[in-house]
Amino acid sequence: MTEQRAVILLSGGLDSATVLAMARAQGYRCYALSFDYGQRHRTELQAAQKIADRIGVDQYKTVRIDLRNIGGSALTSDIAVPEQESTGIPITYVPARNTVFMSIALGWAEVLEADAIFVGVNAVDYSGYPDCRPDYIHAFEAMANLATKRGVEGHKLKIHTPLMQLTKAQIIKEGTALGVDYALTISCYQANDFGQACGRCDSCRLRRQGFIEAGLSDPTLYQ
Amino acid sequence: MTEQRAVILLSGGLDSATVLAMARAQGYRCYALSFDYGQRHRTELQAAQKIADRIGVDQYKTVRIDLRNIGGSALTSDIAVPEQESTGIPITYVPARNTVFMSIALGWAEVLEADAIFVGVNAVDYSGYPDCRPDYIHAFEAMANLATKRGVEGHKLKIHTPLMQLTKAQIIKEGTALGVDYALTISCYQANDFGQACGRCDSCRLRRQGFIEAGLSDPTLYQ
Repeated sequence: MTEQRAVILLSGGLDSATVLAMARAQGYRCYALSFDYGQRHRTELQAAQKIADRIGVDQYKTVRIDLRNIGGSALTSDIAVPEQESTGIPITYVPARNTVFMSIALGWAEVLEADAIFVGVNAVDYSGYPDCRPDYIHAFEAMANLATKRGVEGHKLKIHTPLMQLTKAQIIKEGTALGVDYALTISCYQANDFGQACGRCDSCRLRRQGFIEAGLSDPTLYQ
Repeated sequence: MTEQRAVILLSGGLDSATVLAMARAQGYRCYALSFDYGQRHRTELQAAQKIADRIGVDQYKTVRIDLRNIGGSALTSDIAVPEQESTGIPITYVPARNTVFMSIALGWAEVLEADAIFVGVNAVDYSGYPDCRPDYIHAFEAMANLATKRGVEGHKLKIHTPLMQLTKAQIIKEGTALGVDYALTISCYQANDFGQACGRCDSCRLRRQGFIEAGLSDPTLYQ
């Protein structure tokens, strides 16, 4: 066990809730960070707060940043969320989103003197998103260690991506073993105000299939 | 001449105004980007707007992001701005600020299909800030080209830092030759509501000395 601090990117979804539980299980003091970035699925912020409270964090913060201002994605603009499977880079991709989020996490990590950032990126299901791939994460880490006072003074920061090579079913099994209550999490790209999922978008399909493959009952509230 | 687009980080200060003029002189269609990040010296945002109007841009945007929320700097919290010269990394350093700003610029560049970002970082006067050094900029560029759909599809983004090795006097001479009206720019860390500079902070000292060394009259409004 360690008393080291870690910043955890917490979206309110299934993946990042699992990551928070993993970081806690490794003994980190956890500082959870969410973003109010003009996303359509705003109920995920309420979910993130509940997850942080339930799993237990030293601090939970929401940083507001208006990415709608730069546009370009179905998640932040008026482009419709697709309900059929597509190939290539999906239009739910938000330009540079992970880079922006991890940069702010980097700033908070420096203030906290934390040398770990945990991010729930996954290259199995999100291979269409460039900023979910291992080579990108390594390049971010290299940049981060040149970007900060703390980094250049020799405290090396590590970006932890414990879900990178796991299938959705493996993530769900792992989180269930750690006691994550997935009923609190919202994965849907267009959940309603009650946190109920549409059951039809890419993210809902992936999640539903994950519970089936894991052989576990799906606690998701559908519309 | 080119019809290529470039995103220009524009702070309202002397350096970034010069950079915008340089990008324009190279024939870029310029998209200027400022940040309302809870900085003390908010008059710089009004200055940025005036500079963008005067030099001429295709679009000017301000993105709001509350970096006060993560704290850690004299520029965004209640720590006093120093009025004596100091050594090492100054307390006016905002954790990961350039990384956050360039990340958002990266997102906008992708939406615009721009392959250039111009940043007024300088390693001569700001050697104390890790995120103003060439090795950091190169690492950011490498990361950026793995971060975006556009980057991984082979459109390589370049981070332009035309001021990197220039002294303040050289920057002022260059900008003056390009017609920059430095009376519009604000460098002071604690300018008042009328845009008048304190004349005492690090940034004021550097600027004043620059005009003297350049042998040009200083149009700065002092309190």
